[in-house]
Formats: sequence, structure tokens, C-alpha cells
Amino acid sequence: MNTKNRLNNLRREMVNFSIKGFLITSNKNCQYISGFSGSNGYIFVTQYESYLFTDSRYISTARIQMDDWIVLPITRNYSCLSETLSKVNDISQSDNDFTLGFESAHISFDEYTKLKNEIGDIVSLEPITSLVESMRSIKDLEELTLLNDSVKLADSIIQEVLSNIKPGISEVEISHMIDSLIVNSSADGTAFPSIVATGLNSASPHHVPTDEKVKTGDSVLVDMGVLYKGYRSDISRTIFVGEMEQKFSEIYSIVLEAQMITCCAAIPGITGQNLDKTAREFIISKGYGDYFIHGLGHGIGLDIHEKPMIVSSSQDILDVGSVFTLEPGIYIPDWGGVRIEDIFIMEENGPKRLSRAPK
Amino acid sequence: MNTKNRLNNLRREMVNFSIKGFLITSNKNCQYISGFSGSNGYIFVTQYESYLFTDSRYISTARIQMDDWIVLPITRNYSCLSETLSKVNDISQSDNDFTLGFESAHISFDEYTKLKNEIGDIVSLEPITSLVESMRSIKDLEELTLLNDSVKLADSIIQEVLSNIKPGISEVEISHMIDSLIVNSSADGTAFPSIVATGLNSASPHHVPTDEKVKTGDSVLVDMGVLYKGYRSDISRTIFVGEMEQKFSEIYSIVLEAQMITCCAAIPGITGQNLDKTAREFIISKGYGDYFIHGLGHGIGLDIHEKPMIVSSSQDILDVGSVFTLEPGIYIPDWGGVRIEDIFIMEENGPKRLSRAPK
Repeated sequence: MNTKNRLNNLRREMVNFSIKGFLITSNKNCQYISGFSGSNGYIFVTQYESYLFTDSRYISTARIQMDDWIVLPITRNYSCLSETLSKVNDISQSDNDFTLGFESAHISFDEYTKLKNEIGDIVSLEPITSLVESMRSIKDLEELTLLNDSVKLADSIIQEVLSNIKPGISEVEISHMIDSLIVNSSADGTAFPSIVATGLNSASPHHVPTDEKVKTGDSVLVDMGVLYKGYRSDISRTIFVGEMEQKFSEIYSIVLEAQMITCCAAIPGITGQNLDKTAREFIISKGYGDYFIHGLGHGIGLDIHEKPMIVSSSQDILDVGSVFTLEPGIYIPDWGGVRIEDIFIMEENGPKRLSRAPK
Repeated sequence: MNTKNRLNNLRREMVNFSIKGFLITSNKNCQYISGFSGSNGYIFVTQYESYLFTDSRYISTARIQMDDWIVLPITRNYSCLSETLSKVNDISQSDNDFTLGFESAHISFDEYTKLKNEIGDIVSLEPITSLVESMRSIKDLEELTLLNDSVKLADSIIQEVLSNIKPGISEVEISHMIDSLIVNSSADGTAFPSIVATGLNSASPHHVPTDEKVKTGDSVLVDMGVLYKGYRSDISRTIFVGEMEQKFSEIYSIVLEAQMITCCAAIPGITGQNLDKTAREFIISKGYGDYFIHGLGHGIGLDIHEKPMIVSSSQDILDVGSVFTLEPGIYIPDWGGVRIEDIFIMEENGPKRLSRAPK
């Protein structure tokens, strides 16, 4: 794994953030920086040393796999960290000016209180937001390969599922078909619980599959993705069963056009907010602004939703190497909904679509 | 769902904790108290009113399904909560003595900071630990039914898997077999990523399945569970392929006896710490104390690990209605490991085993 480069990049960022040490408590951020994928542990990095603290279930494997890391037993109340801090050269040489950054979005109030009680006297604690998350918003080559494979798997599965949707099949049966295809593929599981919604149910963007059966004259919305070697994909398609109703055709065209327009508008450096606004203004201009009730898209990678978020409040920047979804949707109560979602990578000239399932 | 009773019980607990309002930010705790199962939202409860704040993806469904709840759009920075608080009678009638409990283990430092900035002037914020978690440690009848069904599914799947383990099959293939059987059952998915470890790999308690193949003369450790209507099961078995090695037989007997001894020692009211100690002292007495490198067990339900935790540091009490695993294990580097794990419910006379897969 490309963790050596990532650790070097992290150390450069730590200088920019004026912190001498950084405590990473987010599971996914630990995995990104160190390769550690256990369910319990945190990492502590300085310019010269890197430590993983974890429990007895993972220690021996971690010591074998993470040869550049010092792997130590985790203790409650951060005493393992305070002991390590007291040994770290920087601290002994300095006059208590060791600033330790911590991931303030990934530590609970309780854990922060314990941390402060244990080490608040020997370092100054600095809340840091989105340091590793911002690094993760630009994918490296290894990540792009894995993401591409994850998207390809989802592509082939959603195509097979859509081709098997016939009147009489239920939402749960379709969801079950997705699960079966994933199990029989090289994917490691679902990226998130699949959404399958038919008819009126599709008016709810995050509908949970029921026993409701597909009927001729119904639309069916399918939103699924796979997990592959840690990386997630996420694709949505909406199809119509039987001869297409005119209103469905109209709404579908608007949603598809919204996706195409935002794809053209997405140039490297654009903010999530501005791109979301592009889609929103287009859908408003078509008279359906009240029915586009979620954000336009989101970054994707180790997490299903990560930076750059493409929602109305997001200052995240889509830059070369960002991988993200564009998923405009229109949801009309007592009628139904349409969502079209693809995954893109930002290149120099704009987004390149990774997902290929036909629309 | 039994949420009305749970909400009543919560309100009684709030009196015991001397809080007038309670903010529940843990997803599972929200689900337990209100039935809401969306991925984004929190609930706010007083003695007289109950509110759910969630986003546009879930609002319409929640309004239909949660008829006793006031469902309002979530906003960033908790302004939706401060507006609601200012309308709540208790606050207007009192002299700023409204104490609002919050789940200090389930709110990040960042979110707490936002919350305090928004409402710190109008209420006094009180960190509360384990209020709903303690309620959840005693299962109600509805939960017991679902847990029983979840355990039965895992039971039948692990039996089928074990009967199909032959020399030449790989860990990944066994894990894949588990996934296939789950997909073709009425379960909703895996309770956690299955552990399959053969030979030396079984010395690592949380081994991730590899392409390593089972050979005659190997032990195979399988640890799996299913998710069924929100409730999780968790069963481990260790088998030996071929004629049983004497050392395996010795270790297996010790682990099995440790489980039986702790099962007998577990009476209603015992702490997790004391029960863990019983197993640990027995295994120490057999000379393998250094190789029992994890806790004895854990409560199970909506979460895979929940109260009562049965580990050396746990003051949690196993009471009538608690559902928990007992999973002693011995892991010897360069030899392998044995773990036996079953699920029990605490009854008046002691634990009743729910999992039936033969050992």
C-alpha cells in the first residue's frame, strides 16, 4: 500500500497546521495513513516517529504488517499515549510547546475529556478538522485502480439486475438479487444497504425495500454499490416498466440533463456549493426545485460519503484526482421519483465518467 | 415496535438522572427509543414531548411511521434544537434551570462545541453516559424474539458451513460460503465480517480470511453472525480436520470447560469483571493464562458489542433479560488458536444457551 507517501504528505500538512504531533482517531483515516484496518486503535505521528496503539486482538498482525510503525498496546484513558509522549524527543527538548493536533470530528466528548485529563498538562491540544479527509479527497494511483475495479463490479451487477426486473418481482427480491450477485462476484460486500423503490415508494429518496411488487406502468429506482478492497462504489438508475408514461419521460429528461449540465460545469477548482447550485438552478428553472430534496453528490472512496461533498453548504473543492458522484433527483409525493447517479473522476479537462451502466 | 414502553422507561430514567430533557445522538439509541432507523438524525425528549430532527431524505417516511413524534427538519449548528427548546414549556416557565442531558459518548468534540455555542446560554448541558445503553442491556420480549430468530439463522448457517469444510478449501472460500448462505436465508446480512482462520492463522483472534487452504491436520476457527431485523448474532466454533492432534484436544477441552464453568458461575447480578475473572483464573490454572488475550464476552443486540461487557474492566451487571456471548479462547503463536462462543440469555436460575450448533 502507498502508505509511505501518504505519511510523508501527512507530515508536510502537519507543518502547515503548525502541529508537532497528530493523533488520528478516525478508523478510516488510520487505515489510509498506516494501512491498519482493525476495529480498535489510533495512531500518533510526529515528524520522526509513527506509533499505532491497538489491542491484543490485532497487535501481532500489525507488528508483522506495519514494519515502519511502533505498535504498542492500547490502554484506557490514554496512559499509553502519555508514556509515549514523555519519551518523544520533541517534548523533552522543548519548553512545553508541543502542540498535539487531534481529530475533533472523530473523538467523542467523553474520549476528549479523558485525553485532556491524561495529557493536557504535557502538551497543548489543538482541534484539527479535515486534515486527512482533505488528503483523501485527491486519490492516488493505487486508490484509483481500486475505485475503478469497485465501479466496474457495481456496473456489471446493476446492469444484470435491471435486465431482470419484470412485473411481479418485489423490491425485497430485487435487493436480494443484488446481494446474491455481489456474493458471487469478487466484491467484499455491499457499499451500503441497497435502495430499491417502485412506484410511489420512489418518492422517498432513501426508501427501504419492502414486499411491494413491481407492476407494469411503474418506475423502479435502484441505488447500489459494492465494497472492494476497502473502496466503495455507488450507482443509481431509474427505469420504467412497460410503455413509458409521458410524465416519467419528462422528469427523467430533466434529471439526465441536470447531470449532463453539472458534468460540463465541473471544472477543477469548483466548490461543491457552486456545482450543487448549477444543478439546483437548472431544476428550479424547469419548475421542480421543490422536489430536488438532497445534495447533488459526494466524494467516494474508503467512505461512501467523503470529501468533496457536493451540497449547498459545501466549500469543498473538486480538484484533479477527486472522485465523486453526481446524482440529481426529483421526488414528487404521490407520484414517484427519478434519480440518476454516476461516479466521476476529475481530470485536467473536467470529469471523466467511471460508471458505464447504460441510462 | 415496543417504543412506547421504552420511551416511558426513558422518561423515568431521566428523572433519576435529574435531567429535564435528553438529547439522543447515538443512531442505535435513537432506533431503540423511537424506531427511527435513518442514517442522519437525533431525538430530543422531555417528560411531555418527543422530537425527531432529520433531513429531507427521511422526513416524510418518519412523519408517517412515528405518529407520536414531532418530526422536524435538521439544521446545521443545532438552530433547529434551540428554536424547539425556546418553545418547550419547561424552559419558558423556569428560571434557566433546564438541564439538558446529552450522550457524551456519542457526540464528537466538534458537534459538542457547536451544540454548546448554540444552546449553552439557554440550558445547562449535562454529559450523560450509558443511560439508553443500560436500558438496552435488558431485552424486552420483542427483542428476545428477534434475537432468537437471529441466533437460529446463524446456528443453521454455521452448521452447514462446518459440515462443508474439507481439505483444499480456502479461508476466503469458507467466508464466501457463509455470505452465500446468509444471502439465501431470511437474514438481512452479516452481523460483522466473518472470521475464518486455519492452522497457524487461528493464533490471531481477529484474522481476516486469506487464500490459505485448509489441510488435513489443521484446525479451523469460524466466527460469524447474522443481522436480522436489526438484531445481531455471533457464534464461534473451532474444528479439527482429520484425526485430532492431542494438543488440540487438550486446548479444546480447556476452552470448553472454561465456557461451562463461567456459565455455571453466571448468576443474575454478577458483574462482567467477576465473570471474566472466573474464566481467566481457570485458564491460568491450566497454564494458558498468557494466551487468553481478549475479554470473555459481550452483550449483543442492536450492536454486536454492547452492555453488559464481560471484560476485566467491566462493572456492567448481567441481570435477568441480559443477552450476551461467552467466548473464551486460547491463542498460541506458531501453533494456532481455539475459541468457542455461544449466546446466552440470563434467566432467574442462570444463563440459558440460545445457540444450539453442536460443539
